[in-house]
Amino acid sequence: MVNTAEARANIGVVGLAVMGSNLARNLASREGNTVAVYNRSPERTDLLVSEHPEAGFVASKTIEEFAASLSKPRTAIIMVQAGKGTDAVIQQLTEVFEPGDIIVDGGNALFTDTIRREKAVRETGINFVGAGISGGEEGALKGPSIMPGGSAEAWETLGPILKSIAAIAEGEPCVTHVGTDGAGHFVKMIHNGIEYADMQLIAEAYDLIRRGTGKSPAEIAEIFAEWNRGTLESYLIEITAEVLKQVDAKTGQPLVDVILDQAGAKGTGAWTVQTALDLGIPVSGIAEAVFARSLSSKPAQRAAARELAGPSEEWTVTDPDQFVEDVRQALYASKIIAYSQGFDEIVAGAEQYGWDIKKGEIAKIWRGGCIIRAQFLNRITEAYEENPELVALVTAPYFSDAVAEAQDSWRRVVVAAAQAGIPSPAFSSSLSYYDGLRAERLPAALVQGQRDFFGAHTYKRVDLDGTFHTLWSGDRSEVEQAGSSH
Amino acid sequence: MVNTAEARANIGVVGLAVMGSNLARNLASREGNTVAVYNRSPERTDLLVSEHPEAGFVASKTIEEFAASLSKPRTAIIMVQAGKGTDAVIQQLTEVFEPGDIIVDGGNALFTDTIRREKAVRETGINFVGAGISGGEEGALKGPSIMPGGSAEAWETLGPILKSIAAIAEGEPCVTHVGTDGAGHFVKMIHNGIEYADMQLIAEAYDLIRRGTGKSPAEIAEIFAEWNRGTLESYLIEITAEVLKQVDAKTGQPLVDVILDQAGAKGTGAWTVQTALDLGIPVSGIAEAVFARSLSSKPAQRAAARELAGPSEEWTVTDPDQFVEDVRQALYASKIIAYSQGFDEIVAGAEQYGWDIKKGEIAKIWRGGCIIRAQFLNRITEAYEENPELVALVTAPYFSDAVAEAQDSWRRVVVAAAQAGIPSPAFSSSLSYYDGLRAERLPAALVQGQRDFFGAHTYKRVDLDGTFHTLWSGDRSEVEQAGSSH
Repeated sequence: MVNTAEARANIGVVGLAVMGSNLARNLASREGNTVAVYNRSPERTDLLVSEHPEAGFVASKTIEEFAASLSKPRTAIIMVQAGKGTDAVIQQLTEVFEPGDIIVDGGNALFTDTIRREKAVRETGINFVGAGISGGEEGALKGPSIMPGGSAEAWETLGPILKSIAAIAEGEPCVTHVGTDGAGHFVKMIHNGIEYADMQLIAEAYDLIRRGTGKSPAEIAEIFAEWNRGTLESYLIEITAEVLKQVDAKTGQPLVDVILDQAGAKGTGAWTVQTALDLGIPVSGIAEAVFARSLSSKPAQRAAARELAGPSEEWTVTDPDQFVEDVRQALYASKIIAYSQGFDEIVAGAEQYGWDIKKGEIAKIWRGGCIIRAQFLNRITEAYEENPELVALVTAPYFSDAVAEAQDSWRRVVVAAAQAGIPSPAFSSSLSYYDGLRAERLPAALVQGQRDFFGAHTYKRVDLDGTFHTLWSGDRSEVEQAGSSH
Repeated sequence: MVNTAEARANIGVVGLAVMGSNLARNLASREGNTVAVYNRSPERTDLLVSEHPEAGFVASKTIEEFAASLSKPRTAIIMVQAGKGTDAVIQQLTEVFEPGDIIVDGGNALFTDTIRREKAVRETGINFVGAGISGGEEGALKGPSIMPGGSAEAWETLGPILKSIAAIAEGEPCVTHVGTDGAGHFVKMIHNGIEYADMQLIAEAYDLIRRGTGKSPAEIAEIFAEWNRGTLESYLIEITAEVLKQVDAKTGQPLVDVILDQAGAKGTGAWTVQTALDLGIPVSGIAEAVFARSLSSKPAQRAAARELAGPSEEWTVTDPDQFVEDVRQALYASKIIAYSQGFDEIVAGAEQYGWDIKKGEIAKIWRGGCIIRAQFLNRITEAYEENPELVALVTAPYFSDAVAEAQDSWRRVVVAAAQAGIPSPAFSSSLSYYDGLRAERLPAALVQGQRDFFGAHTYKRVDLDGTFHTLWSGDRSEVEQAGSSH
């Protein structure tokens, strides 16, 4: 342990809870890095430094000392709980940093907060970078996927450091300069939204197989392990097999049967949906996943509803192998829809906030380190490389072919769930979205007619330019709104 | 026309576009009311006054004159576009009004804006009431459903005036004091969210019948007219029949086939879902309705997706009458779910913001004047009268029986839609919600296991108090979180 005020560290970490400590250790383990560390309560700093002498941390007891221990341009990554804590640390750092220095927020900030903070910090001449960091505690230690926003100038200094600690996927570090100000945290938010959808789809697949075929969690674990060798190969499928095969030592039961069936949430899924609603993007798969978690966490309602009637007709799976394969295909197709919706939101956010986001690059940096890492992401990168103006991911040849192949299975699974009384909100919502997207005509025409009837909201016609209104309370003739043509 | 500064009007209206003009005329038509009117551009005031000499309006050219024309306590209803316009008018009125006077915002304000405005205006001693007004232009003129928030003191003066202009349902005026500050606009927001769901469900019903049976819009109009004589009786079902039977004069085609199938939205549906996400309430029916509209309004994506594969198996309806009846039952059951979710949001909002909202009263004031007016609402009032602590509307005996009777039909319709490739996001999402709510166990346990695996988010057990974590990267034993029991 070196306790010095000499400028000798090239990177600093503020906030040494598990994520911050692990990130600091990751940084220290890479050649060329000397890492300054600071925590509000010095006990935590002391603990980290004493437990990891190999890291050669430069520890400080005050923020002034911390700043002095950093070489210029000073670069510090904040790893504290998102919200007011972040604002307080930013305030402290701006007081001891100088123009040209770089403050990185590595927490799960809401991107609009990041936009606000970047604007405020920029006025001091200091660079502010909101960086989404995914991968949990293990990712922070061994290599996360990193989604930094902020200025190109900051990226010049920060890029090499982040590349040194990021996960490596097929030889490439899982980090790229996403865009200015809040772009990094925005993309991290979408990552988490897709993660919600992915987890819910896996949960529905498990539930359908379990209730449909009577297979045990251990048997279903083997199915997921098998799936993990095919197109579904991904971290979440892999850990699902691990969770399902786990036996509870206390009871001898499968652990999944001992865990209370109420799923928690930390809010980034809800942010993704709320932002999508602002942007006018249908992200039904993510929304249903968020809702499924909140429904699960309503024990009083669920207790009151337990006696509600289920299907009166008996439902059985006649061919379990075919059913499992159908579920696999349904999962794959629904997952494509979830990603397609997530990328729609990225495109809309980029347009709204003026970010130049390379979709293919985003898919690339999600291949390693983060929770939704999957082979599948290479196909997304290829789709956007082939056609950067792709209007919907699901329409790219690779994905439209995959869905074409999967859709009969997908339909059979949604049918089975409805007949059996097994909830499949994400599977069925994704299918409805798919059928809505490809529909020649939608009954939205009727909705628009109703809106014109009760609110004079007008409508457009398929055959004429202009905006029209029917005099519903009058003689029901049609009038064109003045000046509405062209 | 009387242009005077003498205090002689008991109520005033600011903002004389269609809604404001109609509300002013409605007020003027009731015995005992003398109505002051003011508009930023005086031409509009002059037009209203000259076109409606029977109303005896007291017109003013300045806001000072307007204030002077009102007897005390001065009471003015603002009917301007929600947002900055509202803030500007409130600012003007607070400058000319006195403590004890009442400012009513009758626009579609976001309830959190109303909370903010009420707090600011209250400091001047003036009462501020955010009042949701539903019923469109015709409702404003002939009798809307009115949902006022604000103080009990303001309600004392305002109540009789609002009762005089509200719609009458079974002898009772469709207005009640919803709760303090933003409660009125909150409940109006939920009304609009339910309206979105209701309209989408009707649209899906129409689409399924049309594509399933080949019936013409005129024939389907008759079906809706028939439905309007049963449990589905409601304004929206009634006007659906009117829209569907309308023939376009230019082409001779059904109007619904001439209307461009892109549904617009003004944002209150999205607010309902965004607020629900903040409150942790699953409002999947409303969310799917909002998403269906945004999906419809993506012409470039829809054009690119038109060639996506549909079901490879032929789908036909063998018994059209049974199918129509199934769709009717599916519509009814899904509608019950949409209302159940909407009332869940009211309960959660009331708890979050400290409002004493009488759920049965809300259902009552929606029976007339507003867009979702329906016979059905009496059943909701009865359910809450019977059990004010009802934890979920769908579990009330009347509704659980109705769904029990409807559910086989409902399932058949969701099955048909999936097989036929007809989008049914609201039908199928509602069914999944229903099956999730009544499930003995949910796969949320697996989700929670995944969360514990990758993020050490811990879990609870079904058999023990406390919070637990499995050492997934270690020896996979289970540890209890210190101090987590009880």
